Amino acid sequence: MLKLAQKDILRADQFSREEIDLIMETARGFEHELDGEKALETMRGKILSTLFFEPSTRTRLSFEAAMLRLGGEVISVAEAKSSSAAKGESLYDTIKTVEGYADVIVLRHPRIGAAAEAAAATNKPVLNAGDGAGQHPTQSLLDFYTIEKEQGKVEGLTVTLAGDLKHGRTVHSLADLLASYNVHFVFASPRALRMPTEIVEKLKARGVSVAETENLAEAVAASDVLYMTRIQGERFDDPSEYDRLKNAYILTRAMLARAKEGMTVMHPLPRVNEIATEVDSYPGAAYFRQAANGIPVRMALLALVTERA
Amino acid sequence: MLKLAQKDILRADQFSREEIDLIMETARGFEHELDGEKALETMRGKILSTLFFEPSTRTRLSFEAAMLRLGGEVISVAEAKSSSAAKGESLYDTIKTVEGYADVIVLRHPRIGAAAEAAAATNKPVLNAGDGAGQHPTQSLLDFYTIEKEQGKVEGLTVTLAGDLKHGRTVHSLADLLASYNVHFVFASPRALRMPTEIVEKLKARGVSVAETENLAEAVAASDVLYMTRIQGERFDDPSEYDRLKNAYILTRAMLARAKEGMTVMHPLPRVNEIATEVDSYPGAAYFRQAANGIPVRMALLALVTERA
Amino acid sequence: MLKLAQKDILRADQFSREEIDLIMETARGFEHELDGEKALETMRGKILSTLFFEPSTRTRLSFEAAMLRLGGEVISVAEAKSSSAAKGESLYDTIKTVEGYADVIVLRHPRIGAAAEAAAATNKPVLNAGDGAGQHPTQSLLDFYTIEKEQGKVEGLTVTLAGDLKHGRTVHSLADLLASYNVHFVFASPRALRMPTEIVEKLKARGVSVAETENLAEAVAASDVLYMTRIQGERFDDPSEYDRLKNAYILTRAMLARAKEGMTVMHPLPRVNEIATEVDSYPGAAYFRQAANGIPVRMALLALVTERA
Repeated sequence: MLKLAQKDILRADQFSREEIDLIMETARGFEHELDGEKALETMRGKILSTLFFEPSTRTRLSFEAAMLRLGGEVISVAEAKSSSAAKGESLYDTIKTVEGYADVIVLRHPRIGAAAEAAAATNKPVLNAGDGAGQHPTQSLLDFYTIEKEQGKVEGLTVTLAGDLKHGRTVHSLADLLASYNVHFVFASPRALRMPTEIVEKLKARGVSVAETENLAEAVAASDVLYMTRIQGERFDDPSEYDRLKNAYILTRAMLARAKEGMTVMHPLPRVNEIATEVDSYPGAAYFRQAANGIPVRMALLALVTERA
Repeated sequence: MLKLAQKDILRADQFSREEIDLIMETARGFEHELDGEKALETMRGKILSTLFFEPSTRTRLSFEAAMLRLGGEVISVAEAKSSSAAKGESLYDTIKTVEGYADVIVLRHPRIGAAAEAAAATNKPVLNAGDGAGQHPTQSLLDFYTIEKEQGKVEGLTVTLAGDLKHGRTVHSLADLLASYNVHFVFASPRALRMPTEIVEKLKARGVSVAETENLAEAVAASDVLYMTRIQGERFDDPSEYDRLKNAYILTRAMLARAKEGMTVMHPLPRVNEIATEVDSYPGAAYFRQAANGIPVRMALLALVTERA
Repeated sequence: MLKLAQKDILRADQFSREEIDLIMETARGFEHELDGEKALETMRGKILSTLFFEPSTRTRLSFEAAMLRLGGEVISVAEAKSSSAAKGESLYDTIKTVEGYADVIVLRHPRIGAAAEAAAATNKPVLNAGDGAGQHPTQSLLDFYTIEKEQGKVEGLTVTLAGDLKHGRTVHSLADLLASYNVHFVFASPRALRMPTEIVEKLKARGVSVAETENLAEAVAASDVLYMTRIQGERFDDPSEYDRLKNAYILTRAMLARAKEGMTVMHPLPRVNEIATEVDSYPGAAYFRQAANGIPVRMALLALVTERA
């Protein structure tokens, strides 16, 4: 039988379709149980250690709530920089110590590859909660869960990824995850912030349908799912280009007038100003539901990886 | 039947007498159960999220202990400033996210009105743990609980509020709460730090008996309850006035010689030097018992507001 | 019957042999129960408050995990300096407040004597998790537990304490604890960092066998237990002496070639560079197991001191 027991969750592209199905099905089961207001006992007597070497309140709280909803317990390091690491301790030594305290470890770290390094140090399962410009696989999984839940399916959808596609860890990982699901991608971004060529080429090589545009409004009209990310002014070489574009990449209610009925608007949060607050009341504005979906998806991951092998 | 189910706790003046009675009775019940050393199951499977945008260890620990004593769980942000808010996220978005993780939210924020703003953003109950110079209603309720417990009643008491009555959020809210209980107020403060005129006028308009004095020693002699607050030197325009007054507003054992038998001394804590430590052994020195009363009172509030509507 | 009920844990030298035996036996029992993956109920409904006035992630997580493994709950102050203390509150007042919230208190404080001060303020048990250059008794107890577990006994062993023996709180306390167990001590350190004369004299006066050397390699060859600590360059008056010594006090695999079979290598962690990582795979390299032993030992202490007197 398929299992994720004692596995690490390190990258969005590590999963087979069968594994994704297992995670989604497990998450749906937990969401159903939560609705019943049952106190679960799945992780009774188990301890999660969160280790955040850079702060990310949203991600930390989401993992901690997921563990507590499962009946487990949490020991928490919200800002690991003020800890032993400051005294010169290696990540390896920190992990070798924490594995003596906890049954599963969630790591956030500013350095690419830190999660893989941590996973190599210990037999306890490690979940990557973001390693710098690297991966953030649990975000991609909750994005996937949200698309499936909001749209009722994933196959056949037109999914627009919009905003800063050059630097966005989130959109890179989501593209990876969706690539085996027969979606049509639209990548909407300013020229300076296009999806990296190697990602586009890799998708095309896998036979994925990809279109690119600088026109967000046009992309909106074609989309089943619109995934917004923030455009950061400081990333433009030419400030005048940013001035020209900045309003074109703020999603407004007016831009939604041309959207297909039932379109889903997503955002990894935090939002600064890239979605006008007037959009919040749009029925397809799913970004807060998306955040809430982090709970059942992370419950599923925590429960699956801590099963006995 | 009277209920507070799914209500927010935002202001000390929001409560009817019946609601105050319900909270006090519920708190007494929990205090009795705690004495029996029972592990309660009232909030089993429920999660409280504390969100402290400014640190307040005492208040945070008190709420968290209350939730844990009820059998519930806690996710905690001790210093929210290092979180998404730092990336420019609005309070609205933070609350919309956290409502997906928790069943009840306790918010501390430096801005007046922040708690009401948070409550408007979510259907989950929000408890105001202090919004800047605004309100701190759970402090007032535990003060009320303490007076009733120490004195056996509230009606008919002479209650002296002493110290910095101009800036003291705590004493403003307590005056509001006691106003419907037929107490006689004495406001003892330096001239520069008198209770704001609008509060005094409002109390008088409600028929409340109010006296004002600059003489703390005299006020002590008349009081059933003496509620001390700190006088901050930096709030005087005239430093020589502070020098003249500073010792007159430090409560000493000598000043208690003229007190009525059974007088209760209270303080919201932290104390700096406004109550000499020699007073701690005075039988009526209730300030540490007052802090401990935060547990049953906050248990009552958490349990009442999370009931099904 | 011997008990530690309602006692404070303040100093490594406070324990009788009988008390040490009780702690070790209780810890072994809990370790056995943890292996059975049972969720314990020993501390059900009880709350531990950690109060860390200086950060120590390892020690805090270890205590918190111990409490949670016992079925208890935790309220946590990871950095108390940003709390009421910053507003000028005394440690006495902080403790008097927290005793109203929790059943047992774990205190870390930069000031020698702070733990004793805290213990004097409250009837609730206080566990000293390090008071500056003072004591850190739970570290010594887990060190003792580790030696007994790794070597199968304590009596008759040759125990080398190596590195900075002048400033090392850990090695002073461990020497105290082992002194009544008929061990032979070797103190291996640079001349500038020798074990303080008064400690050596005190041990000798108790009839303990003590040898001193500057030669770590030689000490290694004689040891059953080698307890490494870090040598800090900044503590040398003469930098050239540090340059001469610094490699001699880094434990390498090569130095272990002459070690007795079954020698145990320990370290209180965090390690910087005083044990080469190549040593980690040495079978006797016990420092990460030592850290993990903090859980059963602290479980034992928490459970014993919270028993009814």
